[in-house]
Amino acid sequence: MNGRAAAYLQLLRPLNCVMMGLAVWIGQFLASSWHPNPMKMTLSFVTAFTLTGMSMVVNDLYDIEVDRRNAPHRPLPSGMVERREAITMALLLGTVGLASSAVTSPICLFIAGLFAAIATAYSARGKQAGLIGNVLVSLSVAVPFLYGGAVEAETAETLLLYFFAMAFFSCLGREITKGIADVEGDPLRGVRSLALTYGKNVAARAAGICYLLAVAITPAPYASGLVGPPYLALAAAADVGFVAVVALLLRDPEPENARRLKRIALYVMLVGLAAFFAGGLH
Amino acid sequence: MNGRAAAYLQLLRPLNCVMMGLAVWIGQFLASSWHPNPMKMTLSFVTAFTLTGMSMVVNDLYDIEVDRRNAPHRPLPSGMVERREAITMALLLGTVGLASSAVTSPICLFIAGLFAAIATAYSARGKQAGLIGNVLVSLSVAVPFLYGGAVEAETAETLLLYFFAMAFFSCLGREITKGIADVEGDPLRGVRSLALTYGKNVAARAAGICYLLAVAITPAPYASGLVGPPYLALAAAADVGFVAVVALLLRDPEPENARRLKRIALYVMLVGLAAFFAGGLH
Repeated sequence: MNGRAAAYLQLLRPLNCVMMGLAVWIGQFLASSWHPNPMKMTLSFVTAFTLTGMSMVVNDLYDIEVDRRNAPHRPLPSGMVERREAITMALLLGTVGLASSAVTSPICLFIAGLFAAIATAYSARGKQAGLIGNVLVSLSVAVPFLYGGAVEAETAETLLLYFFAMAFFSCLGREITKGIADVEGDPLRGVRSLALTYGKNVAARAAGICYLLAVAITPAPYASGLVGPPYLALAAAADVGFVAVVALLLRDPEPENARRLKRIALYVMLVGLAAFFAGGLH
Repeated sequence: MNGRAAAYLQLLRPLNCVMMGLAVWIGQFLASSWHPNPMKMTLSFVTAFTLTGMSMVVNDLYDIEVDRRNAPHRPLPSGMVERREAITMALLLGTVGLASSAVTSPICLFIAGLFAAIATAYSARGKQAGLIGNVLVSLSVAVPFLYGGAVEAETAETLLLYFFAMAFFSCLGREITKGIADVEGDPLRGVRSLALTYGKNVAARAAGICYLLAVAITPAPYASGLVGPPYLALAAAADVGFVAVVALLLRDPEPENARRLKRIALYVMLVGLAAFFAGGLH
């Protein structure tokens, strides 16, 4: 039993988890002029610790066959921890980490969610991509300093982070839609888009989720009193546009329609940019 | 002649370039409480415009064969702009963009350089990676808001961005070194590391450049008066460590040595983290 507990701990790589937690704290100390909020310090440490742990477990899950040869003593290849247990552990750690970041702030949830997804995507496919994979790992290792800053962010930075998140999700929705539009040409050039790998329906749903995440964030800056009614009016118009795009995409996830909708989405994004302007100019 | 000028302009996609410039300005307006520095506004617009233009040209250069079939009217497949001219144009735009960001601040140069590299890597290889490629594009489209914030950043955020940049580069150096260490096992799992694609010598030099970029940034926070002597003492110790790692790696870029040096680099990074702590605690 003690041996099994040690194996769980080894799988987690607790030293890495603690290091990421400390890096977040440095960010928080600096951004708050040495007066960090203790409650937020607890939450941010939990987020950094658990999400680092999650990515370590996911990494070992993907590397199990390689480790059987190169590192047979590791918890998974040695059989000390079963595959099923490790999956449960990763899901549990991910849930706790995202929950504690969600309690901290929507922006913290965005950063934590983005990097949890990047870490998982890297374990699944990024290693093969060489230098791009190296860049993803390095961004993930460096981001805790900025996360700590985001935890204690002032008004202006919070608003910029909201804009960043909305721009990111709407753009991601459009990029995935492009993959549906190019589903006939992409195989010829070796592009492995979501639409090609999992089908047009899955890609349409994924693009829809991205657009709706952008929509879901739009009220937050207004609710926090960071921007006024002109922002809200324009943002609501963009939201209507995005929801219409999602509805039309889900009804007919075919290349022809996707091509049309990715063009329409660009105009909707321009309305969103106008909302950012209106927010920026009070 | 007029037609050629129009073709150059079409290759640049000036609307995209202007949009990125406006997004940067929104960030700058917000971060400066509506009092942006006009000189910095000029520089940041030039950076956003030229680097967006560069990535558009690079993208068309990589897509020339595909466009010959799908978009034969584009400047490159139609022959209105020659390949050689487009390469010159991309280099010129990249140089102007990085120079204007360097004049703005070292942190702006870091962000601009990182995303110029990401845009180029995406055009060269990222499209094939599907969702990871989509995420890279979306990050690049969303980053101008944060860039504008960085242009007008306050003391604490500037320091956090320095920490982020140093952590990123030292980590990237170490990840590339790992590729040298795993040069025998990686082909079995389909990993296309720098060491495998371009050889161990090129990888060692690339890792060396990354470590030295981290070293080059270390004096900046002290020179800007953001941190005190304890930071400088610990950072100098880490610098000596990194320079030694680079020297030893270049002298013997073989897997055995790379394995040893990636372990040593981890201890040096711990000293760097201690320097960040010392900086954070005054």
